[in-house]
Amino acid sequence: MTGSQIDRRALDAWIKARRSTFETQLKELVEIPSISMDPSRKADMQRCAQAASAMIRKAGGVATIHATAGHPVVSGGFIRDPKLPTVTIYNHLDVQPADEPTWRQDPFRMSNVDGTYGGRGTTDDKGPALTAFHAACWAQEAGLPINIRFLWELEEEIGSPNFEACLTANAKELSAGGRERHSVVVSDTVWVARGKPAVSMGLRGMVTALLTLETGTEDRHSGLVGGLARNPITELAAVIAGCVDARTGRILIKDFMKKVEKPSKKELDGFVASGFRTNRFREVHGFKSLRTKDHRAGAAAIWALPTFEVHGITGGYQGPGVKSIVPPRAEVKISMRLVPGQTPDEAVRLLTRHVKQLNKDVVVKAQHGLLPYRGPSTGPLADAAVESLRFAFGKKPAFVREGGSIGAVVTMRERLGCDVMFIGLSLPEHGYHAPNENYDWGQASGGMAAFARYFELLSERR
Amino acid sequence: MTGSQIDRRALDAWIKARRSTFETQLKELVEIPSISMDPSRKADMQRCAQAASAMIRKAGGVATIHATAGHPVVSGGFIRDPKLPTVTIYNHLDVQPADEPTWRQDPFRMSNVDGTYGGRGTTDDKGPALTAFHAACWAQEAGLPINIRFLWELEEEIGSPNFEACLTANAKELSAGGRERHSVVVSDTVWVARGKPAVSMGLRGMVTALLTLETGTEDRHSGLVGGLARNPITELAAVIAGCVDARTGRILIKDFMKKVEKPSKKELDGFVASGFRTNRFREVHGFKSLRTKDHRAGAAAIWALPTFEVHGITGGYQGPGVKSIVPPRAEVKISMRLVPGQTPDEAVRLLTRHVKQLNKDVVVKAQHGLLPYRGPSTGPLADAAVESLRFAFGKKPAFVREGGSIGAVVTMRERLGCDVMFIGLSLPEHGYHAPNENYDWGQASGGMAAFARYFELLSERR
Repeated sequence: MTGSQIDRRALDAWIKARRSTFETQLKELVEIPSISMDPSRKADMQRCAQAASAMIRKAGGVATIHATAGHPVVSGGFIRDPKLPTVTIYNHLDVQPADEPTWRQDPFRMSNVDGTYGGRGTTDDKGPALTAFHAACWAQEAGLPINIRFLWELEEEIGSPNFEACLTANAKELSAGGRERHSVVVSDTVWVARGKPAVSMGLRGMVTALLTLETGTEDRHSGLVGGLARNPITELAAVIAGCVDARTGRILIKDFMKKVEKPSKKELDGFVASGFRTNRFREVHGFKSLRTKDHRAGAAAIWALPTFEVHGITGGYQGPGVKSIVPPRAEVKISMRLVPGQTPDEAVRLLTRHVKQLNKDVVVKAQHGLLPYRGPSTGPLADAAVESLRFAFGKKPAFVREGGSIGAVVTMRERLGCDVMFIGLSLPEHGYHAPNENYDWGQASGGMAAFARYFELLSERR
Repeated sequence: MTGSQIDRRALDAWIKARRSTFETQLKELVEIPSISMDPSRKADMQRCAQAASAMIRKAGGVATIHATAGHPVVSGGFIRDPKLPTVTIYNHLDVQPADEPTWRQDPFRMSNVDGTYGGRGTTDDKGPALTAFHAACWAQEAGLPINIRFLWELEEEIGSPNFEACLTANAKELSAGGRERHSVVVSDTVWVARGKPAVSMGLRGMVTALLTLETGTEDRHSGLVGGLARNPITELAAVIAGCVDARTGRILIKDFMKKVEKPSKKELDGFVASGFRTNRFREVHGFKSLRTKDHRAGAAAIWALPTFEVHGITGGYQGPGVKSIVPPRAEVKISMRLVPGQTPDEAVRLLTRHVKQLNKDVVVKAQHGLLPYRGPSTGPLADAAVESLRFAFGKKPAFVREGGSIGAVVTMRERLGCDVMFIGLSLPEHGYHAPNENYDWGQASGGMAAFARYFELLSERR
C-alpha cells in the first residue's frame, strides 16, 4: 500500500464546501417517502429513482433507471476507461415505513439541527448513499484513475425480490472490469459505537419457515375433549423445545452445527475491540437480561453463530383472559440465521428431518432463504477498507460482522463475479428502522474522506 | 327401593297430552335470546326470567326472581310441606351466542320438524329445564309427597359469577329440608350416545392461568439481536414442554398427580359401558387422531384425569408469513382441569413452584378456579337416578363423569348442604355450544318419565 497522495487539508476544505449541496440533496431524497413495502407509494419510488439519477447526471455521470417487476434499480456513475479498476458502490434508496407514534417530527420532512439530520431514510440508507456519492464526485474532479459505479436499489427493505433478475439481465454492463479489478462496496452497515470505526466482513444468511400442525377441524371445548384431544400448540411447543435450548440459544437440530465455520480467536478479539459490550447492547435495545454477559460470547452470538428464533405462534385464543378451547391448528413462525459454512437448503433439510423425528405430523414449509456471506478480511480490499477508515477517523477499525442478512450482497458476488466489502457509516443512535431516525455531518464528512481514500487505494490496483 | 306405584301407561298418556304445551313453552323460551355474555341482551335476560317464573306460577307453583349483581336467578316450585323430602332441580336458562355462519335457521326462532326442536338453547339447557318442569307438574298433580324446587340460573354460560352470592343471600329459603332429605339434581349433561343412558357422578374442576415472560421493551430485529437476546416465546415453549408431555398429555408438574383419586376398575368399566368409543369421539369432534385409541384410557383422559392445556400464546408476530422480530414479551394462556382429590389452590401452588424452577422470570397469574366434584355413585340418590333412567329408557344407565366444570354444582353442595346428582338428557348430536343446536321429543318424553320416577323414589326417602 502506498502512502496517500491526497492533500488532507485540501480534501477537508472540499468536503466542507460540499456541505450545503449534500444537505440539499439529502433533504430532497428524504422528503420522497420511498417506502417500498407500501403499495400506494409506487409513484414515489419512481420519483426517488428519477431524483437520484438526476443527481448523478448533474455531477457529470451517466445514469440508467432499470425497470423491474417491482420498483426500479438505479445504476450509473463515472466511467473513465474500461481498462481501469472499477468499484461499484451499493446503497438502497427505499426506506422502512414511519408509522411509529413516537416520531417527534414529520418523518418525511428533513430536520437539520446543527448537522444532525432527522427523518426516515437519513441513515438507512440515503445519507450513506450520498456520502459515497460525494466522495465519488471528489474522485472524478481529482481525476483518480478509477471507474466508480453506483448501484442503488429500491427494494432492499422488502428482501430484494427483483434485484437478482435485474443484475442477471444487465450483468454485462454492471460487471465491466472483471473479477480482479472490479469490486463492490456496500455502505449499509452500523458501527458498534461512535468513535469506533468498524469494517464488517460477513453477513449471516437466513431461512424462514412455518411449522404447522393440524389436529382437528374446529375449536373444541376443553372440558369436553381435553385430555384425549391432541393440542397442536402444546405439541409445537415441544417441537420448539426440541430444536433449541431456550436458555442458551444452542441449536439442538441434529448435524446443524456441523459445518459452521467457527470464528477464529483473532476474529473474536476484533469483535471485542470494536467496542461491543453486552451491557451497552442490553441497554440500547431495552432488554432486561441477555443469554450471556460475556462480551466475546455475546458478540459471537449475534454475528458469528446461527440462531433458531421463534417469531410468533398463531392458533388458539389470542384475546384477553383465557378461553378454554382446544384449537384445531397452530403455526409457529421461525427463522434461522445462518453463518458461513451453512446454506438455506441444507438448513431446511436438517430442520425438516429433525422436526419430523420429533413429530411426524408437523408440516415444515420453508419460505425464503438467503446465503450467509463472508467477505475478505485480508488482501488488498480489506487492507484498503481498514486504511481508509483509519485515514478518515484517526483510528484503526475493528473487523466485525453483521448479524443480519442483505440478500443483494450474495447476489452481487455471484452475478458480478467479485468480492463485496462493507464500509458502513451509521451509528446505533441513528436508529435503523426506528422512530426519529437520523444521520449526522460528522459521519457524513468523515465518510466522504474515507471513501476518497478508499477510491485512491483501489485506483492503485494493477 | 320399592316397586313403582306409577301406572306407566297412564304416565305415557299424560306425557303425550303435554306435548303441545311443552312445545309452546319451549318455543317461548327459545325465542328469547338470553345470551348472558352479550351486554346488549340485559332486557332479554329479564324477559326470560319473567317468562320462566310465569310458567311456574301458571302451573300452580310459587316463583321468585332474585336480582343479582348480574342477571337474575329464578327460584320457586311446588312446596307442599316442609316435613317432606325436597328436591331442587337446577337448570340454566341463559344460552351461548349463536353467531356461527353455519346455522341453517334463525337460531332464535324455534323450528319443529317431527319433534326435533331446532334453535339456540333447545338442548342447553331450556329443553331439559322444561322436561324436568313438566315431570314436576305431573308429580304435583299426582300428589307425590315431595317438595320440588326449581333453581334456574341465567349466568351459567359466563361462569356463574353471581350464583354463590345469590345462594348465600337466600340460603335459608333455598335449603329448606336439610341435608338428609334435601338433594339437588342437575339436568345439564350429555349422554355418550342415543339409547345409552348415562348418569354423571362427577365433574372436573378447573383453574386457568396466564404465564407471562417479559424480556425486553419493544420488538427488535432478529438480525441485529438474534442469538444474544432472550426470546420469550422460545422460553415459554420450553416451560410448556417442562409442564406436560405433549404426546400423551401426562402432566410433568412435580407432585401434581399425587392426590389424584384414580378411577376404580369398576368405574372404568362403566365408562366403556356408557358407549364411549374413541373412534366415534374422534369422528364426532372432527379430530385427525387422538392421544390414544384405547376406549378405557380415552374415557379416563376426558373424565377422570387432570389436564394441562395451552389455549393460546400471544406475543410476537401473528400476521401472514414471517416477520423476523424478537418480541419483548409473550403470554401463554393455560388451564388445568382438576379431578377429585385436587383443588385449584394446590394446583396453582404446584404449577407456580414448578414453573419458577423451570424459569424464574416467568410470572404465573392464576385467574379463576373451580373445585372438582364427585357425586354419589352408591346410596339412595344414585340408585334412584339409575332406576329412573332404566324405568324411562328401558336400559340400565352407565356411570360416567363430566370432563367439564359447572361452578354452580360445588356452590350448591356447599351452600345448600346436600348432594348433587346429575340426570342429563342431551345427546352429542344435539350440539351443545354448536350451530344448529337441537333437542327432541324422544329425549323430552323419556326425560319426563325418568324425572317422574325419580321424584317418586325421592318421595319415599324417610
